[in-house]
Order: sequence, then C-alpha cells, then structure tokens
Amino acid sequence: MNILGIVVEYNPFHYGHLYHLQASVKKTNADLTIAVMSGSFLQRGEPALTDKWSRTKMALLAGVDLVIELPYIYAVQKAEIFSDGAISLLDHLGVTHLCFGSEAGNIDAFITTVEEVATREAELDEQIQAELKRGCSYPKAFSTAYRTIFQQKNVLDLGKPNNILGYHYVKALRKRRSSIKPFTVTREQAGYHETALKNEKIASATAIRRQLIENGKPLTAMINYLPPSTFQQLANHRQRTGSFLHWELYFPYIQYRFLTSDIEHIQRIYECEEGLEYRLKKLITDAASFQELMKKVKSKRYTWTRIQRLFVHLLLNTTETFMKEHCRPLHPPYIRLLGMSPAGRAYLSVKKKELIIPLVTRVSEYDHPALQKDTAAAQIHGLPLQPAALPSEEYKAFPVQLETAD
Amino acid sequence: MNILGIVVEYNPFHYGHLYHLQASVKKTNADLTIAVMSGSFLQRGEPALTDKWSRTKMALLAGVDLVIELPYIYAVQKAEIFSDGAISLLDHLGVTHLCFGSEAGNIDAFITTVEEVATREAELDEQIQAELKRGCSYPKAFSTAYRTIFQQKNVLDLGKPNNILGYHYVKALRKRRSSIKPFTVTREQAGYHETALKNEKIASATAIRRQLIENGKPLTAMINYLPPSTFQQLANHRQRTGSFLHWELYFPYIQYRFLTSDIEHIQRIYECEEGLEYRLKKLITDAASFQELMKKVKSKRYTWTRIQRLFVHLLLNTTETFMKEHCRPLHPPYIRLLGMSPAGRAYLSVKKKELIIPLVTRVSEYDHPALQKDTAAAQIHGLPLQPAALPSEEYKAFPVQLETAD
Repeated sequence: MNILGIVVEYNPFHYGHLYHLQASVKKTNADLTIAVMSGSFLQRGEPALTDKWSRTKMALLAGVDLVIELPYIYAVQKAEIFSDGAISLLDHLGVTHLCFGSEAGNIDAFITTVEEVATREAELDEQIQAELKRGCSYPKAFSTAYRTIFQQKNVLDLGKPNNILGYHYVKALRKRRSSIKPFTVTREQAGYHETALKNEKIASATAIRRQLIENGKPLTAMINYLPPSTFQQLANHRQRTGSFLHWELYFPYIQYRFLTSDIEHIQRIYECEEGLEYRLKKLITDAASFQELMKKVKSKRYTWTRIQRLFVHLLLNTTETFMKEHCRPLHPPYIRLLGMSPAGRAYLSVKKKELIIPLVTRVSEYDHPALQKDTAAAQIHGLPLQPAALPSEEYKAFPVQLETAD
Repeated sequence: MNILGIVVEYNPFHYGHLYHLQASVKKTNADLTIAVMSGSFLQRGEPALTDKWSRTKMALLAGVDLVIELPYIYAVQKAEIFSDGAISLLDHLGVTHLCFGSEAGNIDAFITTVEEVATREAELDEQIQAELKRGCSYPKAFSTAYRTIFQQKNVLDLGKPNNILGYHYVKALRKRRSSIKPFTVTREQAGYHETALKNEKIASATAIRRQLIENGKPLTAMINYLPPSTFQQLANHRQRTGSFLHWELYFPYIQYRFLTSDIEHIQRIYECEEGLEYRLKKLITDAASFQELMKKVKSKRYTWTRIQRLFVHLLLNTTETFMKEHCRPLHPPYIRLLGMSPAGRAYLSVKKKELIIPLVTRVSEYDHPALQKDTAAAQIHGLPLQPAALPSEEYKAFPVQLETAD
C-alpha cells in the first residue's frame, strides 16, 4: 500500500494545490494521502484566513484522506523545525512516500545536497556564523554560506522558498533514518510570493489573500481562481463570522500585550532577542496599524517572517521556557486528527493500534501543554470574529468526516 | 475665597449634574469649583462612555474650573477607598467647601452618623464580620450591621447609594482632620440606578447609557436629556471613533486575558479571591457575551459592581501586590490635571507653589507606577475604537483649557 504524505498550509486551498496533490498521487501511485497541515497560525507567522476546520474540509474535498494538525510549537517556526515536526508526524503515521512541490523539481538534487551538506556541516556552520556576525538574517546567512562553499557544484538553488522547505524535508528524513521515499513535483506557474493575479486559473495563496483582504474584493470576483470546495468554505466562513482573518485584526491584542506586560515579561517571549523588546515597546505606541509597525521593526537583521513569527509568539504569550521544554520536533507529543475520508478512517482504525504516540480526536480527551497551546491559539485566532462565542468550539470539535468517498 | 470641591464621574454629564453643580455653587457661595473625576474606568467597574478628555470638556463647559483625575488605583474601588482618594486630592488643592448629592439631603445626619459609628467602630466591625460569615456581600453586611446597631436612632439610610458615598466623604474628612466644610444637596428626581427614561428633562446617566448602547438609540433621540455641551462632545466622540465604549467591547480582551494567563497569574490579580479564578476560567469559555458572563458569576456573595471592578483589574492586569504598594488613598502620589478654565488656571498658578505633591500636566513629564497605570488604562480603554492609533494620544495630551470664562 502506497501512502503519500504531504505538508500543507492551504491558506486557502487553490488550483496550484490541487495540481500538486493530483501530480503527487500520480507520481507516487498512492492509495491514500495524509496531509500534515498548520493550524491557526502559519509558518510565515500569519493568522490563517479561516479556522482550521474550513481548511480541513477544503483538503478532504480535494481528495486528502487524513488531515493532521502540525502543532503550533512546530508550525510557527523556521523551515528546519517546521520540517522536522511535519516529517516526524508523517513517519509515525506510516507514510511510505513524501512528495513536495519545489522550484527545482528534481529529487536527486535534494538528496545530493543534503548528503553533501552533511559531510561539510562544520564548515558550513562556521561560514553561517561569519555571515550572521555581519548583521544579516539567518536565511540570508545560510544561503550565502551555502553558495560560498558549494560554488563549483551544480547544486540546489537554496534562495527559492520551496527548495528550502524541500531541502529540510529531505534532511529531516535523513535525521530520522526514515524509510519514507521522497519525491518532488515542479511548482507550476504562480510563484510562492507572487502577489498579483494573472489571467491563468492558478493564483498563489498570497495573491488570493491580498485580493480578498487588502483590495477588499468580493469573494465572487475570485471565483475563477478558487476550486468550488474552497469557494464554498470561504463563503460559509464569511457568512458565519463576517470577516476573513488577517494581522490587522490582531493589532489591538498586540498593543494590549505591551500595555499589560512589563519589559521583563516581554523579554521572556520566545524569539524576542537582543534588546528587541525595547525597540518594540517604543515603536508599538506610535504605529497606527500592524503594517506600519512591521515596516518600522523590519531590518537587515530580521526578516519579515521572523518578526511576524515573533508577533505570533507575543500574541499567544509563548515563553522561551515553554518552547525549550516542549518543542522537540523529532518527538511529537501527539497526533491531532482534524479530518478524515472514509478511506482515511479505515486506515486509521487499523494503524492506531501501532501508534506509539497518542492519537487525539478531541482536545478535551488529552492533556498536554502543547495541545493546550494549540487550543488557545485557535481560540485567540477566533477572538476578532463575531459571535465572540466562537472560541469554545475548539473544545468540542470532533474531526471532520467525509461521509462518502469522492 | 470659597473653593468648592466636588467628586464626579460625568458619564455623561447630564441635567442632574448641572442641577447639582449649580445648587452646590449657590449653597457654598463658591468662587471657584474643583472637580475630582474618575478617569477611563469608573467606580462601579465600568468603562467610561467616552474618553476622559470629552468628559473634562463637559465639566468645564458647565462651569467647573479645574478637573483633576481620580487615579485608577482609587477610582475603581469600593466607596471607602474611592472617597478617601478623592477627598485627599481636594484637600491638597486647597478646597474649602465640599458639596455632594445625597438622598438624605441633610448634612447633620452625615456628620452625626460618622461620629457615632466612630465611637462604636469595634462593635460595628464585629457585626459586619458576622454578616459576612453568613455569605452576603460587603455592602449588604455593612448596611445590615449598621441597622442592627443603630436601630433605635433616627440615622442615615445607608442602603441608598449616594448616602453611602456621602457618608464616606464625611468620614474621609474626619480621618484627614480636614478643614473642608461639608454640605449636601438633595438628589433630585432621577435615582442613581434609574434605568428608564421619564418625561422630565433629568435622566440618570445609567438611563442615558442604556438608551445609547443597549437600545441603540441615535444621539438625536436623546437631545432633550443632554445639555448642549454634552450632546456636542458625544457627537464629536462618535463621529471620530464610531462607537461609545461599553463592556461588551472589552469582552474579547477578558477572554484573551484568560487564554494567555495561567491560573497562578489570575490568582494574583487584585480582588480575585477565594477560588474565584477557577470559577471564572470555567465560565469564561462558555459565555457568549460579557452580560452572560456577569450573570453567571454573580452570586449572593459578590455584588455586580464588585465583579465588574474585578474585571477592570483583570483587563488592566493589576495585581494585588501592585495595589498594596501604591494604593494609599490618604497619600495621593500626584495631582493629574485634566482641564482648567481661565479662573482655574489663575488659581493653580498661585496654588502650585504650595503643593506638596507633584502637579502633572503631561504624563510624559512625571514617572510613577500609578500614573503609568492611568495611562495604560486610557490606552486600553481606547483599544476597541478606530483608528487604533488612539492610544498614543494619552502620552501627548495637555490639559484641556477653556479660552474664555463662560
């Protein structure tokens, strides 16, 4: 039985995702597909457009059989931790094949690069540290160091966002000595960071979000870019809650965090390093919006995503201590099931007997600090919405179940 | 020179307040009027309808000469601390006459009662403790104990809210051995807790707020009940910010507080006593609104205002330790000037040389934890409003100045 594992965010699910899903199933001849999906907050430090249940439905309706939540402790992290966490979960679930989208589109390039980096790791680390000392961000330091060391070889372009993730997936497989076989499909058409809409059917999630939020486009204007299931889920969400979620809606909570926390507390927040707390405290009083704040905080040293992730940790009040204690991405504490198709349910009913970590179908049934954090994250994610009662949904929710195979 | 002191909240200023102000000036033959006014949050644990600057203008336009902020550490407190703080500020400012509204309307009743209670304080305390042990609230215990002890005498009815405040004002004067002479005027027509509108011009502030917020009445529907200056200030506020402030707008922040604080932290909040934190944590997840939450928390032991005040402390993240350290109402740490008429300014320019505590005209010029709290309170008070930039106003604000005497 070929079991395909994929790592997704689906914010929202679009035709590019559909293409990737179908191409991956075909390439790996998969009998079943398991997706690990970020929950309420995403890898780049952004709130998801809708709650995770809508996004789970989008995935199931597109043909995914099991949707597993990537816990916040792994999801809102740099590529390495994100990847380690996601791959660990897929490994525990018995996945046999992994398939990811990449700019390179050639799996050998990933495998070779991971091997080569492994043999010259000390050298690379040294180079990275040297770059960091020159005041640049970690991703920039990594890619410069990498290019310096491997300049003669025809290796992977690690300046590209999907190549970086792919590299870390393959590296994670190696770390775990996993038997999962990796594949990649070329990412088609819309680039990851593409923000403008083109005339093709495939638009990036970034472009779709920008149209809906910043440009205030009605959902109907986006109908050609959204698979019917996504359109339906987004329409339901908007009708039920009145708004899609984006950073500006959390800006008052970030202000509130600073207004009610002393500087010593802010210092203890995860990733709040090097005196950043003083700079933030000063800037936050004058910024009229989250965007304005971001532009003021952004510097050569801190990437946009690094700062956005810090704001997620501030919003969720996550301390360095908490992360140190609970974030061990090679050893996930639980498997949180968000949704399943009939085939997914059948698979799980057999597989669960072999699982060595708890399978959580309802948060009230399992007690773990990281799971409580996921729950709090979902509740905080829902705070800007009306009705305000939304937060309690998270406690009661069962996984989404597709009643019929599609 | 007769200098009248009054203690006000003006939420909003209405014809009842105007009557009280004019009657007080007449009764005390005052040359100047100084009002101590609660800031962003009020004695009964409610957010003010508008910011304190609008309310300061209402006061000045009605004839008050100096408006001084009653710091949050005294304002959001039971009658005794509230009164001690207010009277102390008036005393420092050289007030010669105090005049308050009361149901009794007879100052001798207050003076006699305060004297009699003082001579039988131990006995009263014992009786209060006995009542408290029977599970009732403090105000109820006090008034029952008081009636039990003084049943034979024709004393003050301390079941009435304005009589209670008046009693504490007079008691505070006694404690301070103040030379301020107390007066009272009978509260006319609209009762303190009156919520329905009557046909008379005088409506209680509670009734006005209810019409504007719960019943969603347009401001114009209230024009007969609002002095022109109040109408103008309320209209300005609504136009600028889109909304009047009320508890429901802070409900998400209360939810957020619980979602990001562990129970040990909640326990340390001022007035969160006797396991209330567990009850609150449980109830808050299920309540769909602040009103629903209040109804669930309310019990025989805790009055509505007691719980509302606790929610203000939770909202402002004020710990027991903080209050213990800074709340000494007989020794206010500063005099925060909110507004002045030309006569008020002239008075202050002479008086300030004698002041033994700092006169603060702009918060950026003086550093004190209680003042920082007032500033944070004002900023948090403004968080639900658009534009979100409002909070920084508080740092920059100068006192309101009336350019011409009215």
